[in-house]
Amino acid sequence: MVVELVSVGTELLLGNIVNTNTQYLAQKCALLGLSMYHQVTVGDNRERLSQVVETALNRADVVILTGGLGPTEDDLTKEVCAEVMGFSLAEDTHTRDRISEYFKNSIYKEIPDNNWKQAMTPQGAMVLDNHNGTAPGLIMEKDGKTAILLPGPPGELKPLFEEQVFPYLQKHQPEVIRSQMIKICGQGESQVEDKLLDLISCQSNPTIATYAKTAEVHLRVTAKASSEEEAKELLKPVVKEIKSRFGNDVYTTKEEETLEMAVVRLLKKHELTVTTAESCTGGLISGRIVNVSGASQVFREGFVTYSNKAKRKHLNVNKSTLKKYGAVSKQTAKEMALGGVFATGADVCIAVTGIAGPVSEGEKPVGLVYIACYLKDKVKVEEYHFKGNREKIREQSVVKALDLLRRSILTNYNT
Amino acid sequence: MVVELVSVGTELLLGNIVNTNTQYLAQKCALLGLSMYHQVTVGDNRERLSQVVETALNRADVVILTGGLGPTEDDLTKEVCAEVMGFSLAEDTHTRDRISEYFKNSIYKEIPDNNWKQAMTPQGAMVLDNHNGTAPGLIMEKDGKTAILLPGPPGELKPLFEEQVFPYLQKHQPEVIRSQMIKICGQGESQVEDKLLDLISCQSNPTIATYAKTAEVHLRVTAKASSEEEAKELLKPVVKEIKSRFGNDVYTTKEEETLEMAVVRLLKKHELTVTTAESCTGGLISGRIVNVSGASQVFREGFVTYSNKAKRKHLNVNKSTLKKYGAVSKQTAKEMALGGVFATGADVCIAVTGIAGPVSEGEKPVGLVYIACYLKDKVKVEEYHFKGNREKIREQSVVKALDLLRRSILTNYNT
Repeated sequence: MVVELVSVGTELLLGNIVNTNTQYLAQKCALLGLSMYHQVTVGDNRERLSQVVETALNRADVVILTGGLGPTEDDLTKEVCAEVMGFSLAEDTHTRDRISEYFKNSIYKEIPDNNWKQAMTPQGAMVLDNHNGTAPGLIMEKDGKTAILLPGPPGELKPLFEEQVFPYLQKHQPEVIRSQMIKICGQGESQVEDKLLDLISCQSNPTIATYAKTAEVHLRVTAKASSEEEAKELLKPVVKEIKSRFGNDVYTTKEEETLEMAVVRLLKKHELTVTTAESCTGGLISGRIVNVSGASQVFREGFVTYSNKAKRKHLNVNKSTLKKYGAVSKQTAKEMALGGVFATGADVCIAVTGIAGPVSEGEKPVGLVYIACYLKDKVKVEEYHFKGNREKIREQSVVKALDLLRRSILTNYNT
Repeated sequence: MVVELVSVGTELLLGNIVNTNTQYLAQKCALLGLSMYHQVTVGDNRERLSQVVETALNRADVVILTGGLGPTEDDLTKEVCAEVMGFSLAEDTHTRDRISEYFKNSIYKEIPDNNWKQAMTPQGAMVLDNHNGTAPGLIMEKDGKTAILLPGPPGELKPLFEEQVFPYLQKHQPEVIRSQMIKICGQGESQVEDKLLDLISCQSNPTIATYAKTAEVHLRVTAKASSEEEAKELLKPVVKEIKSRFGNDVYTTKEEETLEMAVVRLLKKHELTVTTAESCTGGLISGRIVNVSGASQVFREGFVTYSNKAKRKHLNVNKSTLKKYGAVSKQTAKEMALGGVFATGADVCIAVTGIAGPVSEGEKPVGLVYIACYLKDKVKVEEYHFKGNREKIREQSVVKALDLLRRSILTNYNT
């Protein structure tokens, strides 16, 4: 089955935003075993959009269109697809109700008139409820061709695709494709690839793909088979081999589990509470922990101690330590972690102090970051020299801090 | 002059990498005032690539192709373009010498045979020296059409474009394009468009485009003219009109200024320090403030008080308030803001308490969030009912909190 992606939006043609939807959808389609030969981007222009849709429907079985479903005059995707495929538009009362519901209790006093345009749907199309916006997704089938229309904002597109489009496509694709995620923290992409070179080069089913993330590497092992069971049997030995090669560097094999979820899972398992003492990360570590629903079981409070005075007041860091070694030092990181535990009674404290830039501090370079973790009367401190701009240095610090916390628990409980 | 982008590479169709080259080139072309109507991605397949190139040359004056200039069998861009445009390939001694030079002192002991393929160039084409790789860029002109071929790796493409292609295109494009950003917080995309409908529909130069962000709307006003000055003159009255319609909802007109940068700028201007008291946002507000380099001038410490106990201990929230009204209440938010100022001596405190979900708390629904801002003996509290998942609710809370902080300063200082 051949699929083509069409992105609609003048902002893409002007380069105002980077087209991440296309990568996301391409990955998902590859996972489903669909063939993709073209991806096209076109602006909010009726005539050109119409031509692009026609060409795409000619050369592909399924065309996935993103963007152009908004409430404004410029949003034409639905109207154009309906016209090209010969559907007529009519108001969908279910969608109308959903729009009313969406605006109820919202920050808007009344529903803008043009939002009602989003309640018009092609007659006979499948309407996909959008839980994060007012534009529903649509699936239109005619003469063996399918158009799938999805809203452009990734926060709306991804849940819609995941929950409703993926299963729909899977049903229409006879081959079974199953994949297993393996998430690794602690090694770079080339290191990971080096360690897997023999597996990557000699195998065509399953395949192994690597994806570099901030301070993480994700591996996807994918098998094609004629049944679910067969695919699983193909995956099993390869996944086992990879896990044994990377040991504790693997923090999860669950697709949806993030690093902070893995950390919170371990904390819960060992009935530990954690606190945070953050300087350059400024609250991003606690922010990540609170990402996890149910975090309140393991996290109650955290400190953002950006100034030296705050480090002393809340975390009891010694004046002499700050003077002698500086705020960005092994010693200060250690005292921050100890102080966090002392101030809160938590079992674990993760502390970070570093220079995110853009300006270095004295002899200490931008990118120098110390991360300390206190657990069971032991403090482990790590020194990092991160590359990149302020944002990148802080992002890497957050990941490495969460990972140090994870490893400290594993080491301590030998699990 | 119409330009079309063609990205070549099966890795793009599989979603292995995100296509940042396209955004980069689209931005540059917009800056040059070139019109762009299509962007196409196609794999390393001779027949399909040939068709895509032919179509692109038909509908555009200039086609910029990226990728597929490498040394392997799969790399076909040059061969296909030469064939479609009727150029024959011959060895370019200058390029051959550059390849030899490139491999000298490299990690390779000898030059791989297939690299010599890169010395073959279309006869009559302009060869653009690539200082960061072995594949030269190429410009092929014929019958009023131009194909520009660039290597795919961004580290090679960008310098080549910047130094050689940009000036080439500039010479061929007499028109100037300038645009002005206006960032708005406090109104939804349809509300903003409603207020601008007359301006959007009656003007073609400048044009106004809206972009919905999380709890923000960005407007880009773009003018075409024959000179920089003329473009600026066209922009001025429209930008002025928009600013007057949205007043304090406009937080910046600087392209690169984020909401947190605008907030820190205002705090600095009025010599104010700020602290944070966060529950459901878990440190993300302080994390955003610390995004801004130089934040230490206005921000010294923040509290993440996720549990009731922490709210009492650090922020002195009354036990009776928590009991009577609950942690997610106007009263608690107010006491958190007061407590933050009291505990730190900061001039301003922004406090957030809410239910990010996925589970509601008693009668209080998911999405209910209270945001309080203390400034100069006054506390303002706002109640929100956000939609979406846990992540979305927290993101919106952060933006609205930063915006309340911004507005409180504006109101108080009447600026």
